[in-house]
Order: sequence, then C-alpha cells, then structure tokens
Amino acid sequence: MTSFSEANSAHVVAESFADTPDGRLKRVLTSLVEHLHDFVKDVELTEAEWQRAIDFLTATGHACDDTRQEFVLLSDVLGVSMLVDAINHRTSSAATDTTVLGPYHMVDSPPRELGATISLDGNGEPCVFAGQVRSSAGGPLPGAQVDVWQANGAGYYDVQQPGVQPDRNLRGLFTTDELGRFWLRTVVPRYYPIPDDGPVGGLLAATRRHPNRPAHIHVIAGADGHAPLTTHVFVEGSPYLDSDTVFGVKESLIRPVTEVDDPDRAARYGVANPFRLIEFDVVLDRRDG
Amino acid sequence: MTSFSEANSAHVVAESFADTPDGRLKRVLTSLVEHLHDFVKDVELTEAEWQRAIDFLTATGHACDDTRQEFVLLSDVLGVSMLVDAINHRTSSAATDTTVLGPYHMVDSPPRELGATISLDGNGEPCVFAGQVRSSAGGPLPGAQVDVWQANGAGYYDVQQPGVQPDRNLRGLFTTDELGRFWLRTVVPRYYPIPDDGPVGGLLAATRRHPNRPAHIHVIAGADGHAPLTTHVFVEGSPYLDSDTVFGVKESLIRPVTEVDDPDRAARYGVANPFRLIEFDVVLDRRDG
Repeated sequence: MTSFSEANSAHVVAESFADTPDGRLKRVLTSLVEHLHDFVKDVELTEAEWQRAIDFLTATGHACDDTRQEFVLLSDVLGVSMLVDAINHRTSSAATDTTVLGPYHMVDSPPRELGATISLDGNGEPCVFAGQVRSSAGGPLPGAQVDVWQANGAGYYDVQQPGVQPDRNLRGLFTTDELGRFWLRTVVPRYYPIPDDGPVGGLLAATRRHPNRPAHIHVIAGADGHAPLTTHVFVEGSPYLDSDTVFGVKESLIRPVTEVDDPDRAARYGVANPFRLIEFDVVLDRRDG
Repeated sequence: MTSFSEANSAHVVAESFADTPDGRLKRVLTSLVEHLHDFVKDVELTEAEWQRAIDFLTATGHACDDTRQEFVLLSDVLGVSMLVDAINHRTSSAATDTTVLGPYHMVDSPPRELGATISLDGNGEPCVFAGQVRSSAGGPLPGAQVDVWQANGAGYYDVQQPGVQPDRNLRGLFTTDELGRFWLRTVVPRYYPIPDDGPVGGLLAATRRHPNRPAHIHVIAGADGHAPLTTHVFVEGSPYLDSDTVFGVKESLIRPVTEVDDPDRAARYGVANPFRLIEFDVVLDRRDG
C-alpha cells in the first residue's frame, strides 16, 4: 500500500478496491472516493464538522422506518433524486419532460373507466383532468396506460392518512380511447410540505428553506413500443412553483386550472356545467431499437 | 428558481442555500452538492444503484447504537477519517506523523507512575514501551503528558470486553521525567479486525478487502506551548502493515519489538533481563503564535 497523505489520499483508497470482482461496483466506489475526498479537501473539513456529519447521518438513519425514508428526503432536498431522474430519462426534445417519482407511489393504482372519479373523499375543489397520449414519432396512442395519483385538497396522500382517507383515494389507472385520450374526475391538488420534523427538516430550517412542494398531479404514462415516462403536471398559480423543495418543477409541466362553460364538453365528461379543467397531453418516445 | 437540468443541477441546488445565515454551513453544503452531483454524473448512477445507496445508508444508520458507530467505520474504510486527520494536523517535517484517533478512546486513561504496568490482565507477551518527548524547535520536553491505550494480546480493547477485561486495562496517562522520557510496562499488541458484521463489513467483503488493522499502540502526546499530537506506533512485522483497512499506517511510525539483554536497563525499567522493548520518540510542534 502506498503511504497515505493529503495529496494521494483518493489514490490510496482506490488501490484498496483493486480486487473488487464487480467492475461496476469498483468504478462507482472509486469515483465516490475521489469526489468525497475532493469535497473534504475543498472545504478543509474540520474535525468538529466531521463529527456533525457523522451525527447527522446517524440521526437520518434512525429516522428511517417502514413508513418514513429520511435518506430519500435527503436525496430529494439535495437535488440528487432529480439528477438521477434526469440522467436516466434523457427524452427527445419532442417528448414530455420527466420529473421525480416521489415516495407516495407505494401502492398500485386501481384500474378505472374513463370519466370515473378518483376522489373518494370529496376533499377539494372538483375538477376534470384530461389529455391525450401521443408518440414523439407522430400520432395518438390508443390503449396507452395512464397512472395518476395525487394529494387531496388538504395536501395529504391516502397512504399518509390510513383510516382517514378511503383506501386508494386519488389513485387510478386509465386506458386511453381510440384517439389516445384520457379524462377523469378529481379535485384540484394542494401544495404540501414534505415531512420536516426530522434531520432533513433541521437542515432545511438551518438553510432557511421551506419544506413545501407546489400542487401537482403525478402521471406515469406507458404504451406499446414506447418508453414509459414518469412526470407531474403542476398547477399554475400554486404557491412554491418557483421554489419546490425537491426541485421537481419544469416550466413545460405547468398547466392552468381553467373554468370551462361548455355544456357539450360537460356532458362528455359527465360533470355539471360550468366545470374546472386541467389539460395535460403526454408525448412518449419510442423505445430504443 | 432556475429550471432544473442535468447541466445546471448543482447550480440550482446551490441557489436554494442563498439565504443560509451561517456562511460556513452555506459554503460546506454548496461544495458538498457540487461534488455529490459531479459523482452522480461521472458514473451516470442508475436508479437501481441509487436505491442500493439509499438502502446501504439506511442499514448503516440502523447499525449505529450507543456502543457501535457504523458511519465512523464507513468514514474509516473510505479513508475519510485519515484525510480529515491529515488536513487538520499539518505538522512540520520535524514533528512526528499523526494518524487517526480511532473509536476506542472513549474513556479517560488513568494517571500512572513511570514504569507502571498498564496490562492488568496479563494477556499477551510482556514488553516495555519507552521513548522521549521532544520539541521540533529543539530539546526534550519534561512534564509532557503521554496518553497510551491499546488492544491486548488477543486483539481486544477493554471497552469491547466489559466484565472480561479489568476496567481501564491497557490504558495509562504518563508524565515525562526531567529529560522528557517515559517508560511503562505493557504487552505486545495484536492486530485485530474492525467490527465487520454490519453494512461496512458487507462493503469490505464485496470489494475483497479484509477488515484488519495491524498491531499498534495509540499515543496522544501534549506539552506546554506545543500542539497536542495523536498518533500510533505500529509493530514491525505485524500482519496487515501494508493493508491497514483504515489506512492509518505511515512508514515513519513503524518500530521493531527488540529483544534487549542489558541488566542495567532491565533494572531501570523494573523488569527481568532479558526483555522486549518498543522504543518510540515523539516530536511536537510549538503552537502557532
């Protein structure tokens, strides 16, 4: 082993991984050590700061249990989750932009008929959510799957309020019609804070950051021969659109809630006229090859 | 907020720290995010690898309790602990090299008279540990403090075997004589593994690294007007000198266990002739200013 020094520290540690059988693990660990050591050198981390980092990581681990993942929150508020999303979903310029999956897609969405409501508790302002799934190669995609989930008008997902909200509230799996269209009844989602009573909340407070996400509806769209796409539609005018604490907002994903006065469309959607509407089309790329 | 993209991800997250009142915290977090994002981009971390990282950090947190610090072990085996030591203890070329404190200095060493034994269980080969504390500015340092602790001949520290080893076994705080000298009776330390039944042990196994540290005696030396110095003396010929799993070994800190046949020295040290001896002088830098 080369003798350890401030100058060659990352090299010495990288040498220790020389016999790693999994080449990818070796590459990832070597890069991790290089960047981690560069960080420590860049800021000249003090021993007291190192101890604070150890204590923070330990508290973050202790905050994790079956229903809470504090390290995912940490990844989210440091922009790592969005970066991993960006790297792994380099869509064409024609395709809809992606954003993070988030931690609340932990149960399957129930299949529902087009036009069905997903709001089982009626908590929030009623609205219609409608759009079309198309291919970036051109043309609508009939029979595409559209998985939708969201928080209610109070800012909570069903899984956060077991026994309060009905099971599978505000979740639905829809199949587009012969013109690639989907439509469903729901409520206007509300902005909400990520859980902020743990170490990550402490980090946000120490950096004067709020814990909120702007109002959004989650969408995963998939169709034969096309790469599935995970995204949100964000509600125009929602608080925190310019400061989403997990950095999920892209301008291209913001849509207004419009007031529609059109008896024919109201009848088609099965709602009383006038009605609120969020429209969001999704464009998918073909799979490689 | 600038819209998030793969290209500007670190910049967008750094912007979110703009209002951090503590300038040092802002600087450390900004650098952390830059290096962390660079790492993710460098290896193009997959979503499955991100999930493995989340799971590993969570398991590491769950392995931490009052007597086990798995994140310190992780810092150790990634060379971060040694790097923080190097950055925070840039000694002059004349001073003794430093190395890590380690996790076993968790209890105070009891003050003992020069020549006393620190081996209360007699587990190991008896030997004398002796040296001189000097200033890098020249001259011996009478009245210097020499704090010594080590594992026994079986490779365990007292705090790892409560009820098995006597309390404060193999620990002692000594004061140098009028010539800056110290001497004490102990046993030859043995190499030992760091705890390897947790996630960090899993990492070592996956990278074909062993968990062992070569045999060593810990020393903290301090004297009036001088910066305290934390180091080890390593036993020449010990297994793992060339592959210390925490990267603590420096060539300058390796000393032989010599067999001494000298009745006068034996009498001075209060041991039977012949005897084993480890000699280790410590040179301290003056404090700045």
